[in-house]
Amino acid sequence: MTASLDSTLASIAPIDEAIRAEAAVRLDAKTKPPGSLGRLEELACRLAAIRRSLPRDPPRPAIVVAAADHGVWVEGVSPYPQEVTGQMLANFAGGAAVSVLARQEGARLVVVDAGVIDPPAVEGVRSAVVAGVRGTGNIAVGPAMGRDVAMGLIERGSALADELADEGAQLVAVGDMGIANTTSASAICAALLPATPASVCGPGTGLDAAGVARKADVVGAALIANRLTGGNGRPDPVRALAGVGGLEIAFLVGVILGTAARRRPILLDGLVTGAAALVAATLAPAATGSMIAATRSPEPGHALVLERLGLDPLLDLGLRLGEGSGAALALPLVRSAVAILTEMATFEGAGVSRA
Amino acid sequence: MTASLDSTLASIAPIDEAIRAEAAVRLDAKTKPPGSLGRLEELACRLAAIRRSLPRDPPRPAIVVAAADHGVWVEGVSPYPQEVTGQMLANFAGGAAVSVLARQEGARLVVVDAGVIDPPAVEGVRSAVVAGVRGTGNIAVGPAMGRDVAMGLIERGSALADELADEGAQLVAVGDMGIANTTSASAICAALLPATPASVCGPGTGLDAAGVARKADVVGAALIANRLTGGNGRPDPVRALAGVGGLEIAFLVGVILGTAARRRPILLDGLVTGAAALVAATLAPAATGSMIAATRSPEPGHALVLERLGLDPLLDLGLRLGEGSGAALALPLVRSAVAILTEMATFEGAGVSRA
Repeated sequence: MTASLDSTLASIAPIDEAIRAEAAVRLDAKTKPPGSLGRLEELACRLAAIRRSLPRDPPRPAIVVAAADHGVWVEGVSPYPQEVTGQMLANFAGGAAVSVLARQEGARLVVVDAGVIDPPAVEGVRSAVVAGVRGTGNIAVGPAMGRDVAMGLIERGSALADELADEGAQLVAVGDMGIANTTSASAICAALLPATPASVCGPGTGLDAAGVARKADVVGAALIANRLTGGNGRPDPVRALAGVGGLEIAFLVGVILGTAARRRPILLDGLVTGAAALVAATLAPAATGSMIAATRSPEPGHALVLERLGLDPLLDLGLRLGEGSGAALALPLVRSAVAILTEMATFEGAGVSRA
Repeated sequence: MTASLDSTLASIAPIDEAIRAEAAVRLDAKTKPPGSLGRLEELACRLAAIRRSLPRDPPRPAIVVAAADHGVWVEGVSPYPQEVTGQMLANFAGGAAVSVLARQEGARLVVVDAGVIDPPAVEGVRSAVVAGVRGTGNIAVGPAMGRDVAMGLIERGSALADELADEGAQLVAVGDMGIANTTSASAICAALLPATPASVCGPGTGLDAAGVARKADVVGAALIANRLTGGNGRPDPVRALAGVGGLEIAFLVGVILGTAARRRPILLDGLVTGAAALVAATLAPAATGSMIAATRSPEPGHALVLERLGLDPLLDLGLRLGEGSGAALALPLVRSAVAILTEMATFEGAGVSRA
């Protein structure tokens, strides 16, 4: 670990259970049967515990979408041409799903090039490219990236989280873009859970059954090529990340850790951000307290990651797009959870009788 | 049936499958893998089919909350004092959960007194009271209301739906308030599905196991007292409604039918609005096409109603409040579904390669 990352990890503390309980007491005084707003009440309490104080307003959200290319694409694990990653970098300026959804919620959208091959020149896209590395190596035959590149990307992600917090973001939603990146995310999950390739691999954005089987074979080969098949406990998470990860995933690990260190909630999206969260949680177990699972992906690996992190998603809409689209769709629930806590009348105030 | 209700029922037509397919084609041209936005895409297509045209903007929503008292309260089926129904009528002016959630979404909130005992004088609450009937009879020993009262309330609900549509509401979310009304709703479900009292009854807003058993006994007694135990097919829905229903439920049946007749989507809430939807669907099966289930209630009867109506809820947050709170929480998904259809870029427009 570098000194900077060590310092980030050291400042990730457990969330505040006393504030969580205080929020619950506050909610029980509201004009509704106790607990009758279900998961919305849990969410309100968790948000209070993460910020270590009762919120007065809904958190101002930022959505970070990190994009990069994947060398494993050559193994035929995606139906899409690799050039789509770069094309989408331009599309995030307004026409992509997450762009539309961010606009709906008035969320700031930050698009990051973490290693896209031949990226188009797009105003507003931030570069986080480390040492000129654009695109990972093919994980089926060797490492995705050097350990120094992984560490550099984590640090840049953490620095972005700091910058966003300084600029007023009170919640960070994370999203990913990278053709073939569910293969990399599945490999990280298989290495760190640990789990078999077949148990984590799914169709991603559109493989058929034969494609899923091939993807599982590729993940199996990647674990062997990068000596991540376990045997003596779980591997070092940075070694797994550098071995079979993605450049955008490494960057998102940093965003998650940096946001947890700044005591802001992190709204997770689907499998790829889940893999980043798994790496982050392995580095800093207390970071899971600041994570909120927005959505349940149909990818089998995602359910295993959520179970490991102890997270129950707010939405289950069959989304398999990524980009942070599921996280963006959960933002209104976050806003409403805080509004319930701050705006609802109490039994006493409204003159309503209790049970 | 009255001439007015006959005319409403006659104008409820199947939704437009050709427009649904057209919306699906439109979505497949957007920059995302086909179907990757899951239930959000289904929702967008259904909204188009209901309005019989591709939407250009998110529908302007109105939320109708109907309140009334229930004579069956004397059987001890709710932990709350009956006076809470009237007290909440005042609280809907701003401090109730649905008031907060409606404000979050900029939705118009229409509060209706469909038969509250001793209602407080509250500005803005509309009266739909028929023939001075405030509170139902105790269904465990006799009818809830006369058939003429049920018909009158349905007509007033339908008239409100017409008025809202004329004033620009493009979607109507429904909610209920009435201490003890899950007992009445459960009895309607038991009569019309048909199903046993034990299979439909749950804790409502806070009964313990003994309370749930007593509630099922009360529902069983209500079915016998009102000769709704079946034997020769499903009973006439208006007879079931007048026998074991609630005044607010009758009114909501009218709101649902009137909204379906005006080709606007109806956003359903939990068990009580589900019972109203079941009555409406039994009167006019084509009305189900216009219904959208916002939320899955933990009440066992709700799952059976949703199955009968062929509806799969958008949210599953363990809500058991009513008031339209679940419907209000689903409004952002409706808005986002339309935004995906209208605002996302196409592969051609954005220069993004297809699979």
